[in-house]
Amino acid sequence: MTRFLLLLLLPALASCRILTSGDILSNEINDDDCNLPEALITEIRSFEETANTIMNSILNGKFKGATFSELAEFVDTFGARVSGTKNLENAIDYVLDKMKSNNLENVHGEEAWVPHWVRNEETAQIILPRNINLPVLGLGGSVSTPKGGLEADAIVLNTFEQLDTENVTGKIVVFNEDWVSYAVTVKFRSKGASEAAKRGAVATLIRSVTSFSMSTLHTGWQQYEDGITAIPTASITKEDALLLQRIQDRQQRIRIKLNLQYTRYNDSLSRNSVAEIQGSLDPQKVVLVSGHIDSWDVGVGAMDDGGGAFISWYALVVLKQLGLRPRRTMRAVLWTAEEPGLVGWSAYNASHFHELDNFTFVMESDEGTFTPLGVEYAAGTEGGCIIKEIVKLLAPINATRAVASARGVGSDISSWTESLIPGASLLNANERYIWFHHTQADRMEVLDPDNLDKATALWAVVSYIIADLSEDFPRSRNVSN
Amino acid sequence: MTRFLLLLLLPALASCRILTSGDILSNEINDDDCNLPEALITEIRSFEETANTIMNSILNGKFKGATFSELAEFVDTFGARVSGTKNLENAIDYVLDKMKSNNLENVHGEEAWVPHWVRNEETAQIILPRNINLPVLGLGGSVSTPKGGLEADAIVLNTFEQLDTENVTGKIVVFNEDWVSYAVTVKFRSKGASEAAKRGAVATLIRSVTSFSMSTLHTGWQQYEDGITAIPTASITKEDALLLQRIQDRQQRIRIKLNLQYTRYNDSLSRNSVAEIQGSLDPQKVVLVSGHIDSWDVGVGAMDDGGGAFISWYALVVLKQLGLRPRRTMRAVLWTAEEPGLVGWSAYNASHFHELDNFTFVMESDEGTFTPLGVEYAAGTEGGCIIKEIVKLLAPINATRAVASARGVGSDISSWTESLIPGASLLNANERYIWFHHTQADRMEVLDPDNLDKATALWAVVSYIIADLSEDFPRSRNVSN
Repeated sequence: MTRFLLLLLLPALASCRILTSGDILSNEINDDDCNLPEALITEIRSFEETANTIMNSILNGKFKGATFSELAEFVDTFGARVSGTKNLENAIDYVLDKMKSNNLENVHGEEAWVPHWVRNEETAQIILPRNINLPVLGLGGSVSTPKGGLEADAIVLNTFEQLDTENVTGKIVVFNEDWVSYAVTVKFRSKGASEAAKRGAVATLIRSVTSFSMSTLHTGWQQYEDGITAIPTASITKEDALLLQRIQDRQQRIRIKLNLQYTRYNDSLSRNSVAEIQGSLDPQKVVLVSGHIDSWDVGVGAMDDGGGAFISWYALVVLKQLGLRPRRTMRAVLWTAEEPGLVGWSAYNASHFHELDNFTFVMESDEGTFTPLGVEYAAGTEGGCIIKEIVKLLAPINATRAVASARGVGSDISSWTESLIPGASLLNANERYIWFHHTQADRMEVLDPDNLDKATALWAVVSYIIADLSEDFPRSRNVSN
Repeated sequence: MTRFLLLLLLPALASCRILTSGDILSNEINDDDCNLPEALITEIRSFEETANTIMNSILNGKFKGATFSELAEFVDTFGARVSGTKNLENAIDYVLDKMKSNNLENVHGEEAWVPHWVRNEETAQIILPRNINLPVLGLGGSVSTPKGGLEADAIVLNTFEQLDTENVTGKIVVFNEDWVSYAVTVKFRSKGASEAAKRGAVATLIRSVTSFSMSTLHTGWQQYEDGITAIPTASITKEDALLLQRIQDRQQRIRIKLNLQYTRYNDSLSRNSVAEIQGSLDPQKVVLVSGHIDSWDVGVGAMDDGGGAFISWYALVVLKQLGLRPRRTMRAVLWTAEEPGLVGWSAYNASHFHELDNFTFVMESDEGTFTPLGVEYAAGTEGGCIIKEIVKLLAPINATRAVASARGVGSDISSWTESLIPGASLLNANERYIWFHHTQADRMEVLDPDNLDKATALWAVVSYIIADLSEDFPRSRNVSN
């Protein structure tokens, strides 16, 4: 097939590959889709022994259980690590010190100005039709109610469209939206306050964005629209959203008292934590692995994103201690202040803009480190075929799937991977990720030592091979050779 | 086979039928085990049309969704219904009034003295190795700490045996027991305080008794041993128990500050709620269906045991409104004060002791109303065969399983069914029951309208047929005819 003909066909092929929730198999690349040069396939296969050495050292050797036990000690020592806090900076110092004691190279912090928002006091009470305590959890960046709280009638809505058909002026708007998917449903959390404020609402309470609840409150950042009055906004449990819906459906008046007190301090300096294994032949070229070190103030951020940060760090620790130094530089970055809006990445991107041409491949794990299945990638067809070949070497840990993302991958790295830098995230059995997301249940017990070992092994094998290949990983998207 | 030979074989057969967790199939009765008279089988099968009428009216007819919507209105109106409180009595008044408006017969309350234990204030803090807030939930009946709290070193244990090998004097004992099953593991909750007090501990913190946690606290009643100093006792989350275990395993000193303030008021009068459909031929004989109306103070007791109470009540409502009056009396009892130790049942048992010979069959649902599968029974071989034949009529709702219990069934009715009164409980897909048990997550959202309909239908069909059979349900145990 000529390249020209193939280009004509590509839009149709691409449209088959839109990632759909629960059906990622349709985006899985097959060998039949690939036409890699034999030499490249042979080269990738030549890494089998190295890959096995890496996996063995983690699954059965000296690194067994290390990712979990190091992460447990870290979160047990520091707990939650909130953007702007001294505790986060202490945690970053701890990590940088440890990275140095791991003999990683070029270990340093890179400064970033980050937001600092703190919850002081949060109470809410349904007072009509009867007194019911209403647990609430403010959304990141929310303004406060007046001191002493506010009291208003509440109206329960299910869509933004209802804001135009119902009178919400002076009311507390309760969004009891159905769960569809995080991508679809999160808009109620991120934009609900401003949408309701435009129509005169005095506060919003958002049903926690989750597929499953055990009376669990989920926080998360939210964004006020410029020029719109900022009103206080907090999450409530799915159970209470449905309770309020039933009360309204019975034609009963709902009145709520809400006292939300927060402080937004001035931005403060934090740091992205960086460690490297310098490349042996092309040290200016970079394969980057990453996760974020900051967390929400509920739970301890073991899952989001302790797991992703620590597999990125430990991938380098393992390679270094095994004496594996690839052609290109491997760089681990533990982002700061991801939760308030990719703030650490944004600073990093600005200061490394000149260097991005040298970013061969970027990886981020920020969607759980449950049982690893393979990788999700944004890398074009040829890139996907290379990844497919690489993950075959992960057969010993049963993580051989390569799934194309329709857009970018990752959270911090999403802008990079939506444009031209190829990248990958960890494909893992994360069906329950959302259950724990931004909740007090984000604890070490979500994680499993063996799964973390497998994730570290996968992360190390994939990044190492891409960093050591004789040819640079292809940048072109959607073009097969 | 002669009856004599069969009797010799029975101990061996019975030993195959010990209920084992996760393997109840081995206790399922098969037609091959049965030798019912043809006339009895024919009679049971003659109920098919009636059974279908009952099921249809609930699943597709006028009662569709009624059990759920009535229960939702009830728990939304009253919330938690704690033994000894005015709120519980208001809820009982509401139920009795509704039962009368349902035209049920002989509707009345029967008095019982019940405990009244209230939690006032509960805070705990790990202060060494660092300050960590420690959510706690006191166990029912716990005494208070001194005003202002107590502070002590803590020791984490996994078994009662370790109380004899470790020095716990003056310490807070944290029981971080593995989850095995509720039956096995609950002893740490119910007896942990006294066992630790015997060795000089000053308080106990018990890992919540559950197979799964989302930082969830589980309360429950606990029993102080006579003559042993009563020490304060509360549950902690599984996550915090494991955190404390890890800290101890790192040889770090653990110090905890604990402030638990409770009030034990004098016992007060409550009521078991009773409604009947009087028997047409043998009104003195009773088939009893039941669940308990009281709940813990966390959550709203929708699952434990709103579902069981309401299917019992609604089984009678449906039969009454369909004009079905069986030979024997059907009696619904909504027990009060089950949670503090079957207190309502105990009073009822004492005042009805003279009548127990007339209790033909007793039923209780207190282990969830998830997808109904059939019934678990304590009824001997012949009784089991009758039940097996009856549940065949439940094929339209796919709930045809009849499983023998090695001991009794139910909670309130367990003493009755462990002795000679045959009885049954609802067999349902309750694998997640323990997740929500005695927690703030026990809300309406655990329940499903269709499953509640099926449970009501099952409950009505089984109880009605047993109440209407021409022969009394057999009392003899383990004797086939």
